[in-house]
Amino acid sequence: MTTQQLTEQIKKKNSFLCIGLDVDLNKIPIHLLKEEDPIFAFNKAIIDATHHLCVAYKPNTAFYEAYGLKGWKALEKTIMYLNVNHPEIFTIADAKRGDIGNTSAMYAKAFFEDFAFDSVTVAPYMGKDSVEPFLAFKNKHTIMLALTSNAGAFDFQTKIVDGKELYKQVLETSKTWKNAKNLMYVVGATKAEYFADIRKIIPEAFLLVPGIGAQGGNLQEVCKYGMNDAVGLLINSSRGIIYASQNDNFATAAAGKAKELQEQMETILNS
Amino acid sequence: MTTQQLTEQIKKKNSFLCIGLDVDLNKIPIHLLKEEDPIFAFNKAIIDATHHLCVAYKPNTAFYEAYGLKGWKALEKTIMYLNVNHPEIFTIADAKRGDIGNTSAMYAKAFFEDFAFDSVTVAPYMGKDSVEPFLAFKNKHTIMLALTSNAGAFDFQTKIVDGKELYKQVLETSKTWKNAKNLMYVVGATKAEYFADIRKIIPEAFLLVPGIGAQGGNLQEVCKYGMNDAVGLLINSSRGIIYASQNDNFATAAAGKAKELQEQMETILNS
Repeated sequence: MTTQQLTEQIKKKNSFLCIGLDVDLNKIPIHLLKEEDPIFAFNKAIIDATHHLCVAYKPNTAFYEAYGLKGWKALEKTIMYLNVNHPEIFTIADAKRGDIGNTSAMYAKAFFEDFAFDSVTVAPYMGKDSVEPFLAFKNKHTIMLALTSNAGAFDFQTKIVDGKELYKQVLETSKTWKNAKNLMYVVGATKAEYFADIRKIIPEAFLLVPGIGAQGGNLQEVCKYGMNDAVGLLINSSRGIIYASQNDNFATAAAGKAKELQEQMETILNS
Repeated sequence: MTTQQLTEQIKKKNSFLCIGLDVDLNKIPIHLLKEEDPIFAFNKAIIDATHHLCVAYKPNTAFYEAYGLKGWKALEKTIMYLNVNHPEIFTIADAKRGDIGNTSAMYAKAFFEDFAFDSVTVAPYMGKDSVEPFLAFKNKHTIMLALTSNAGAFDFQTKIVDGKELYKQVLETSKTWKNAKNLMYVVGATKAEYFADIRKIIPEAFLLVPGIGAQGGNLQEVCKYGMNDAVGLLINSSRGIIYASQNDNFATAAAGKAKELQEQMETILNS
């Protein structure tokens, strides 16, 4: 999918919501545990109930790896279900990978070709040759960690390097990499005012924004400083949506929470 | 496995060699491709031929994920084979994971409990709460990227932060984390003189050292600056050993290459 197509979907649906599919078997409704594949059954129900309200889904690979082969199979079924039934949806493998060149190329193959995700998240610590193998894939997107939404973000990301914060160095340096146009960035919502500076460095790139809601981020503020002409934002919510209820009505409850966010987004897009 | 037990194994085998099991189906002997599980067949042959020459094996997860469910299954069989037949071997999941706390906890569960690896590699960019969930596991080891052996290491890792290189900040900061005694670090061999400074910060921790051989690192120099009283080094070689030959004799050829390194290590340990 191209970024133009993503923006078109956002405008069509009046939503720039991304739903995180972080499936924890201890948190899903008990009746699903007797399904042959409880993780996929949960995801399918959530997708069926919410796909008209969001433009992206983001399974975090950790939650699938934690269940071994069964988890990996559930991830495969989930991405296949999305690609077959909802090709208009932007899919994100939240994997935070990154390794030396030939190894990153293997990860890129796994996520872009075998699973056929539209995008994958990567970590910047190992630099240019750890990320460029991902960038080589046409119409695929590499979402690099810049400023994350967790407390540990302040351990290294905000430290000053050559007069500016490390995450800004990461943004600036990455712009010089081959096929940098295929980069998007993770920027946490916890400090909305940071978005103004970030937009000076990367005015056009899409930003994947965790941390709205449970982690304290404010949607209006993030949009005020972070939105660009192509919208340029994907706001992620995971637990706040998918675990809205643990009862039989979990999918409807999830859709209700997604609808709340979508309506706020519609108001912002129309203002 | 405790670090004391690891040091005992090193002294018993006169080796601190780690063999990287980075299996690429395009590089293994063609006759293995007709096996039911070529990846595991290759690993088993390599392990059978080399286990007396090394103290650790390190499958890089990228090479398994790239083959989807089959790859994941081969990884499961490989770690099970090692744990059952060679419990004295230190096992490393080279996964370079790292995410927000509850997600890192899922990764830790996957690698330490389900797969039962002794250790896993992690990336530091997301800071304390992305690493501490790994450190909570007793007698399990978290090997954090500090200074990697690739060209991109100079993009961020060696940049100056508060008067010293980022990788040194990573080393120092991580020492304050809960259960920091369970930390080891990745330090590339490409600049042996760096090890002297690194040992001032972390005198006791084990270092996993890639980059000897193919990438230009020098074993004697690394040992001169990096070795401590408990040896404290695991020198990794992947392609240089496992792809020594693509013929029927591949396992014997791999053992030959491993033996060369082991003998150099024996000389160093006895000097």
